[in-house]
Parts: sequence; C-alpha cells; structure tokens
Amino acid sequence: MRVYDIIKKKRDGSALSKEEIDFFVSGYARGEIPDYQAAAFCMAVYFKGMTLQETTDFTLAIRDSGKTLDFSAVNGIRADKHSTGGVGDKTSLVVAPIVASLGVKVAKMSGRGLGHTGGTVDKLESIPGFRAELSEKEFIDIVNSVGVCIVGQSSELAPADKKFYALRDVTATVDSIPLIASSIMGKKLAADDDCIVLDVKTGSGAFMKTLEESRALAKVMVGIGKRAGKKTVALITDMNEPLGKYIGNSLEVREAIKLLHGDGEQDFKDLCIALSAEMLYLAGKGSLDECKALAKDSLASGKALKTFRDMVKAQGGDVSVVDDPWKMPESKHFHYVLAPENGYVTALNAEGYGLAALTLGAGRNKVGDKIDYTAGIVMIAKKGDLVEKGDWLAMLYSNDKTTFEKAEKIILESTEITNDRPQKRPVVLERIE
Amino acid sequence: MRVYDIIKKKRDGSALSKEEIDFFVSGYARGEIPDYQAAAFCMAVYFKGMTLQETTDFTLAIRDSGKTLDFSAVNGIRADKHSTGGVGDKTSLVVAPIVASLGVKVAKMSGRGLGHTGGTVDKLESIPGFRAELSEKEFIDIVNSVGVCIVGQSSELAPADKKFYALRDVTATVDSIPLIASSIMGKKLAADDDCIVLDVKTGSGAFMKTLEESRALAKVMVGIGKRAGKKTVALITDMNEPLGKYIGNSLEVREAIKLLHGDGEQDFKDLCIALSAEMLYLAGKGSLDECKALAKDSLASGKALKTFRDMVKAQGGDVSVVDDPWKMPESKHFHYVLAPENGYVTALNAEGYGLAALTLGAGRNKVGDKIDYTAGIVMIAKKGDLVEKGDWLAMLYSNDKTTFEKAEKIILESTEITNDRPQKRPVVLERIE
Repeated sequence: MRVYDIIKKKRDGSALSKEEIDFFVSGYARGEIPDYQAAAFCMAVYFKGMTLQETTDFTLAIRDSGKTLDFSAVNGIRADKHSTGGVGDKTSLVVAPIVASLGVKVAKMSGRGLGHTGGTVDKLESIPGFRAELSEKEFIDIVNSVGVCIVGQSSELAPADKKFYALRDVTATVDSIPLIASSIMGKKLAADDDCIVLDVKTGSGAFMKTLEESRALAKVMVGIGKRAGKKTVALITDMNEPLGKYIGNSLEVREAIKLLHGDGEQDFKDLCIALSAEMLYLAGKGSLDECKALAKDSLASGKALKTFRDMVKAQGGDVSVVDDPWKMPESKHFHYVLAPENGYVTALNAEGYGLAALTLGAGRNKVGDKIDYTAGIVMIAKKGDLVEKGDWLAMLYSNDKTTFEKAEKIILESTEITNDRPQKRPVVLERIE
Repeated sequence: MRVYDIIKKKRDGSALSKEEIDFFVSGYARGEIPDYQAAAFCMAVYFKGMTLQETTDFTLAIRDSGKTLDFSAVNGIRADKHSTGGVGDKTSLVVAPIVASLGVKVAKMSGRGLGHTGGTVDKLESIPGFRAELSEKEFIDIVNSVGVCIVGQSSELAPADKKFYALRDVTATVDSIPLIASSIMGKKLAADDDCIVLDVKTGSGAFMKTLEESRALAKVMVGIGKRAGKKTVALITDMNEPLGKYIGNSLEVREAIKLLHGDGEQDFKDLCIALSAEMLYLAGKGSLDECKALAKDSLASGKALKTFRDMVKAQGGDVSVVDDPWKMPESKHFHYVLAPENGYVTALNAEGYGLAALTLGAGRNKVGDKIDYTAGIVMIAKKGDLVEKGDWLAMLYSNDKTTFEKAEKIILESTEITNDRPQKRPVVLERIE
C-alpha cells in the first residue's frame, strides 16, 4: 500500500477501503506519513468528501490511534452528550445531573480547547476547590456512587485527531463535514458509553452557520455512532443568539446552579430538558414524552440539584456556591452597556457576544492561555425585549478593566434594535436519528 | 498577507493576485512556508485551476526564485525549443544545428532529470569527451562562434520549481495543467531567449495522453510565453509510438547523426523540419513555408551536419563519431526480439518501449542513478510494417544481459500485430500560436 495511491484515489473521487484508511491514519499518527501528504489528503477530502462508511472507518481509526477507555466497572447504562459548541452553552452542567438523578450513569470527559469561553471542565474549575483531574479509579468510583462525574479529557485519547486538527487549522481544510464529524466522534467513541446525544448548533455563533450544513453534519455523526454500535441521536439547536443570559466560566456555573434551583431562562431550560429527555430515552427510561416529564420533575423537585451538589462535593468543590450561586467568585471590575436607542432587540449576534467574552478574558486564543474565570457577560436584554435608550443592555465583568471599551464596542455592533417585534423561534429546531 | 488566506482563497475558487502568488512562491522557495501548506495549495490548484494571468504570475515567480541568465553577449536572435518529453525524442540534436546553421543562435540549457532515457545532455555525453558543464563565458563564446551550444541546466535556475515538483510528485498533484505549464515555463523563462518553440507530445508515451489535454497544456504555455514577452508557438505531436527507431542515449545520438547525414525515419525527419521551421519563423527568417524550405536545405546540403560537428568539437567531443555514427560506443551484449506471429504491426506502445529501455539501463529511476549510455533499443519494425513470425522486431542493447528477458517481455506486450493494415498519421497534429 502506498500513501501516494491513497491520496490519488481520494483525489479522483473513489471511496477508500478500511485497510487504506487504517494505513493512512495510523501511519500519520505514528509520524511515518509526513504532514505534507496528510495536507494533500485533507484537501482532497475537502473537495471529494467521504461516504458514511469511509467516514466511520476514518473515525474508528482516529479512535484507535490512542487509548480507549473501559467503563465496564460502572454499574448501569452510560449516556453522554456532546455539543458542537456555542456561546453561553452550559447545558452539560444541568443535563448531566438531571440524567444521573434518574439512574442513568454519566461518566463525562470534557475537553478544554480554544473558544470564547473555556470548556465544561474550565467552567467547573471556577468553583473553588473543584478537581477535574482524577485517577481512573476515583472517576469510576464517583460515577458509581453519585451517578455522574465530569473530568478533563485525557491527552492520550485519539492523538491522531490532534495532529489532523492542527494540520487542518493551517491548511484551510477545517470546513469538511466528514473531517469534522470524525474528529468529534473519534474522541467520543474512545470513551465507553452506550448512548450518545449530539447537540449540533446552528447559526451565527456556531461552527455551522446554516441549517442545511448542520443537518448534514448531524446525519453523518448519527450514522457514525450507529455504525459503531452506539445508540445515537442528534438535536439541531439554535445558536443565533447566546444560550441563556450568562457568558463566561464562573458566570455560566452561576446560571446553571440558578436553573437547578428552578430559576432560568426559557431557552436554556428548554434545551436542558430536551437533551436530558433524549439521553433518558436512549437509555430505555420510557417514551420521549415520558422522559421529558421525568427530566422536568428532576429539575422541579430538586433531585438534579442534589446530584450536582453531590458531584461537586465528591470532586472537592465548595458546595456553598451550589447552595447559593451568588457566592460564586466575581471579577474585580464591571461595566454596564447601555441601549443606544429605543426599540425591540431583534438580533443578538452570538459570535459577536462570544468575541466580546473572549476580549474580556473568558477564553483562550491559543493553547495554554490563562483564563480569567470570572470574566464574561450577563445579558440583561434578550431577543424580543423592548428597551429604551439608556437602559441596561448587558453587564461586562473582567479583572482587566482596559478590556471594557473594546468589548462594549463589539456588543453594540452585535446588538440590533429596531421597531419590529421579532418572532421568537424554539431552541430545538430538528431531531435527527 | 497570510498563507492560510491564500490557500482558502484558491480553495474557494477565486483568482489570486500577483502579490499573493509572489508571496507564496518566494516564501516557499525560502523555506518560510512549510511543505504541508504548499501541498494543500497544490491540491486546491488541482481542483480549482488558475487563470492564465495567475498561471503567468506563478511562472514568473518560479523564474524569479533563482538566478536568471543574461544572453545579451550573444550576437543575434536567440531561439530555443522544449519538448514535454517522449520516447526516442532526439530532435534537439538535429533541430539545434539546423537552426544555428541558418544564423539563429541556439544557447540551449537542458535538464537531465528522470525518464526512460537520459535528457539531451546525457545523450550528448555519450559522445566520448563531450563536455556539457561549461563556464558561462565558454558557453556564450561557443554560441557566438559556432551558433549553438548545449549544456546542462544550472541547478541555480528556478529552485522553487524543484521544491514544488518534488512535493507534487508525492502528493498526487502532478496532473494539473497550470502547475505543469508553470514548471516548464518557469525554467524556460529563466534563460534569455527571444523565441520559444514548444513540442507538446500527446499519446501513450507522453505525459498528456489525450489530444484534448495536450491542447489545453499547449495553449496555457503559449499564453504564458507571450505574456512574458517571448515569441512563442507550440506544436502538438504524436507520441503513441516512439519517435524514429532508436531509443537510448548513444543509440539516439547515432540516429541523429544518421539524419544529419541524410538518412532517417520519416516521422523523425518530419518533426525536425517542422520544429526548425517554427524556430526560424519566429526569428523572422521568412514565412513558415520559406523556413521549412530553409530547414530542409540545411539538412540536405550538410550545413546542419557541419554545425553539429563544430559544436561537438568546441565542446570537446570526439568528432570521428560525427563523421561515422557507427563508431559510437556500443554495449557488450545484444539480443533480438522476434515477431511472435504474422501480420501488420498495428501499435507500438511508446510507454512500453520506454519502460523496456529503462529496464535495459538507459534511464534513471531516481536522481543520481548511473545511466548505461549504450543501453537501449533499435526498433526494426515500425507501425504499418508487415512481419512474419520469427522476423526481427527489435534489437536490445545492454551491458547487463540479465535485463534482456524482462525487457523482451515488455516489448512483446507493447507490440500489437493484427491482420489489419493501420492508417499512418502525421507526426505533427496541431499548431497552437
């Protein structure tokens, strides 16, 4: 088998065999295939795509490039969710305890990565004392005793994905559905779950800007999951405006805890219920409607809050912030952004709000950047709200007050105020199974 | 300017500006742009192509990546020819002296490269004593005194092309017309000629297998030449069967000298006259018909032979082989291939004959391989000849007689004998200007 022939075959639009894909991915992961051949390959895939079978084989080759986990010591069915990433998306913090409170195990590994804010693990680490780096035994023990544990993703998982991703990032080959899908699913499948629920975001603040692209990605990921023997479903959800009202690490934890106490924005709550219901449904807890009712009850009855509190405690975190979210650490400085005119808030560009949060210090520009956990934005007006000139639109938080001017400018550019009352649309747009 | 944006722009099908192309090519030549970005770029060009203006800018950037030559010390108009490469193509050895004998200067630099046989320079070096590595002053002096000099191509010319070519060779991005055209023309334009005649081969033994592809390549190369201010024309010529009857370095020199003495195959002679006429025409020596008559006369009168003899002498070669081509060195061993059946020779697959010559030792598999100058093939039957079983089809030459078995097998597989007398077609198929 020759690398050249594999590149040429893909360039000419033929489907590659499992053997060819395994040879290429494992050779690249081991450093035997050079970056320049992998770059040409990725560009050929960009133009010629891959069939679902090829994409699945590519995903499994990525999974098998590193360590795979064994959750057989976990008692019961294991379900996980994965979001393709959006602004203000803190659903895992609520969904995981809801599902765990109902007897489905959530052994969650979460990346840190780059973005407007940190990942789920960074958010949890904004709780004083919280430990996201545990031994495998501690991890499994907490899953068994509490029902849920959330830790950082081991760097030993799917090393081929890291190489491919870094390469794609500098060769203009990121925007390829089979490569995106296999990157996400290669890591997910390295964990040992029975059920996977995918939250594929769509809109200005998402990687996929159009419903059509998001649907295509969702279908491929669900197809991969099923071919890999996992129960898999995807929801396509709106990411034109930020989810909920809080953006930033400790701010998002505060909003999640507020919802666990029963107080939350409709869109954020709706999405948490929908995702929880899907996980419960795949785990065999009843019909989708029954699972939705179970999830709502867990939230309303405080069961989910208790499970979250138990998890934070087991992972060394300060539970006083769970009992009172206003005890979450806050930044030294804050700043109000005022409405520049009268009217309805008709659009809140999620990408812009994300960029403003990054400007304030909430995220990472490059690997290793230090996050200001307390930096971020609390949105006061959401889409559809009527504001008067001078009303508070949003509140900015940062430990570096020199960032406020730039962040405010971005926020104002990202907020549209007109005389026309906008239509609200539901947060869950489609379901792909 | 960012490399990423240039790759993405080409990937998305937009035309690049001259500044972007210069930035990319010069950055890559200097080693500032890594191979993996250049590989992704080449694959994007493979799929999206380049406009003639982009291809010209790319060609000039390749030319300008290294030394460019100054032939201003040469007295008179300078013309050159370039062939895209075929089996048994020794036309330069005849065309250059014809043209020079008629007062147009030929200051020729020729590559060695890889192939079924060596390049023009390797062929000339099979003449005992011939020196193809001269100082610039010696080179120009011989061009002025004899009218023609043929030397090896300096490795300082167009270094970007070497990097791109080596990369394309391992990333399945060779088959791209703008990249092929700019590779050839980038080197050609580094020399300082007024007129360029391109011999674009088409058929089984050529890089371009179809007339359509060859025409497309010819049009782009002529377009580049003209935009770079050179008088340029291309002939598309047949390479389904080998040119002439001799394949191999010293064997091809023998056949060229035979033609200079007035004795040669029709296809080989026709092509030499056609190419010479085009060079003379571009150099302003009269109408195309007049130039054809001039070229024929130079060959018939022995003028071209005298010029070739003068050149060989000036470059240190043994002129006794020019006076009598049978004095060219011969291999230790030879072997006859016999016709396996009665019939007309209906096809002689040029690629197969080339491969057989390579097997016998006439060419290079990789850079630095040593050539057996005397190895090769003399074809006894050509297309259209009637043979009987047991007749001599071809004679194989090599200093390694263990190669005969494999070479004979290839020859027999590459020779088609049927009962139908084939149509002969002219060697020059089209003219592109």
